[in-house]
Amino acid sequence: MKYHLIIIGGGPAGITAGIYASRQNLKTLLITKDFGGQMARKAVEIENYPGLGKVSGLELIQRFEKHLNGQEITIKKDEISRVEKKKEGFAVLTKKNKKYESFSLIIASGGDPRPLEVPGEKEFIGKGVSYCVTCDGPLFKDKNVAVIGGGNAGFEAAIFLSKIARKIFIFESSEEPKADAQNQKEVKKIKKITLLTNVLLKEIQGRDFVEAILYQKKDTRENFIVPINGIFIEIGSQPATSFVKGLVDFNERDEIKVDFETYATKTPGIFAAGDCNVGRYKQIVTACGEGAKAALGAYDYLRKNKILK
Amino acid sequence: MKYHLIIIGGGPAGITAGIYASRQNLKTLLITKDFGGQMARKAVEIENYPGLGKVSGLELIQRFEKHLNGQEITIKKDEISRVEKKKEGFAVLTKKNKKYESFSLIIASGGDPRPLEVPGEKEFIGKGVSYCVTCDGPLFKDKNVAVIGGGNAGFEAAIFLSKIARKIFIFESSEEPKADAQNQKEVKKIKKITLLTNVLLKEIQGRDFVEAILYQKKDTRENFIVPINGIFIEIGSQPATSFVKGLVDFNERDEIKVDFETYATKTPGIFAAGDCNVGRYKQIVTACGEGAKAALGAYDYLRKNKILK
Repeated sequence: MKYHLIIIGGGPAGITAGIYASRQNLKTLLITKDFGGQMARKAVEIENYPGLGKVSGLELIQRFEKHLNGQEITIKKDEISRVEKKKEGFAVLTKKNKKYESFSLIIASGGDPRPLEVPGEKEFIGKGVSYCVTCDGPLFKDKNVAVIGGGNAGFEAAIFLSKIARKIFIFESSEEPKADAQNQKEVKKIKKITLLTNVLLKEIQGRDFVEAILYQKKDTRENFIVPINGIFIEIGSQPATSFVKGLVDFNERDEIKVDFETYATKTPGIFAAGDCNVGRYKQIVTACGEGAKAALGAYDYLRKNKILK
Repeated sequence: MKYHLIIIGGGPAGITAGIYASRQNLKTLLITKDFGGQMARKAVEIENYPGLGKVSGLELIQRFEKHLNGQEITIKKDEISRVEKKKEGFAVLTKKNKKYESFSLIIASGGDPRPLEVPGEKEFIGKGVSYCVTCDGPLFKDKNVAVIGGGNAGFEAAIFLSKIARKIFIFESSEEPKADAQNQKEVKKIKKITLLTNVLLKEIQGRDFVEAILYQKKDTRENFIVPINGIFIEIGSQPATSFVKGLVDFNERDEIKVDFETYATKTPGIFAAGDCNVGRYKQIVTACGEGAKAALGAYDYLRKNKILK
């Protein structure tokens, strides 16, 4: 059995691609480790998915998953190890040692949290260092915590933690935080959050568990140590795209280069939607839009190449 | 009072742009005749807006409108007569003789399907007459349907419908269809599609729902009646974009040319999202994604030009 389309990823882009592909009667397989992508790690309620007002990440994932399950589509819970180009189409090899074949592919594999790469980070993963504030935040009741990253994710993590932790420090390396105005306004109102900008994180310290952060002020080069129990790293994501190396072009951040109208990559038949591509704006609804376009792009590709009659 | 941003249009693209702009704390004015855009004409259920499963056009509009009303945004029910470029920013003149000023603009004025203008067409909209085959095609399982228009859109609609409907008639008024060779070749292979050229559509007939089409052979002037349940009108759309003439570039169909990453037009500060731009795929969720990107694009533009601090 050779599929018309294999979709890799179960976040907003992959799920929307799945809905569109199955509505176009494509024999479609969607492979994902789990559903929701980065929504699963969202600390605060999602307020910018049009039509749903305020909704928790979990509820939105459940709604998406239910919508997808209502379609004619095959779903496999698995991870990708390699994609190979065949004479006609592609072979997708998975970590469960399965091999699936298709005439076209949509990569919607999103991203994994980007590590900070400072001494102490790896050693203390699960011992105070975390990449998921919804998962691990509740462990830090009345403790001091740090959030690394002054984008929306960092600010939202800090707001979430302000209901749990004693004191929260946000560390941002540039002079201005990149969080949107709404989030900045909200953080300003919360007294127990301290924002530190223009700082360089140098080391995570501790014995068995995290005990402190060593950082440097960029302007004066002075070093400081803050006693801290938990560190949440929120500096963005790195696309999980290594399995298509050689078949697509990457930018310097390993994001897949695409044509922004159809989301086609340089290899005919391979499309890339959502956070894994080079697109500037990475939102739930933009990932959905891209997933729909990639599925329609794949449909047009299959027709043009007479794979679909 | 000069706004940071004026959004023109209240369909999915305009509403999403409004949600995003207000969450960025932009002083935003949204001008629209009414809410919902093309969704408002849809009597059938929408099944491809991710997260909502099956939802009526009306319910989706209400959900979008409610979400927008929860934001800090000014809304004016009005129509645009002209946009002028000022020394800094733009002036928007309306049919109610108002003049609003802003530093940036998002055109999200959508497009209307080009009507056929035959008796019966208007009366049966949503009752068998449709302008969107991907949306409404699945309703006509094992029924007889007609596609009006022998261009690529019409041929592709017929091919799509061939997996659903019992019999499909394509009506083309000129002697030769304009669809490309590929599409023509493909349609020829599908037995259940009948192509009628050099015909004049005269009337759409029925009681509560569409029941038949009356057409005339142009050469012999003979009249014929074909029993039919659904009619898909695919003779192109007409974007409502004339009010920005001179400020943006159009393609041959009056769609606004944009950069597909930020949705910027050739005039700095003017963006165009959704059906009014040249984008190939025009869906509710793709319009939403474009609206979000255009709002973030406008926000970046305002910051870059130090209008926002």
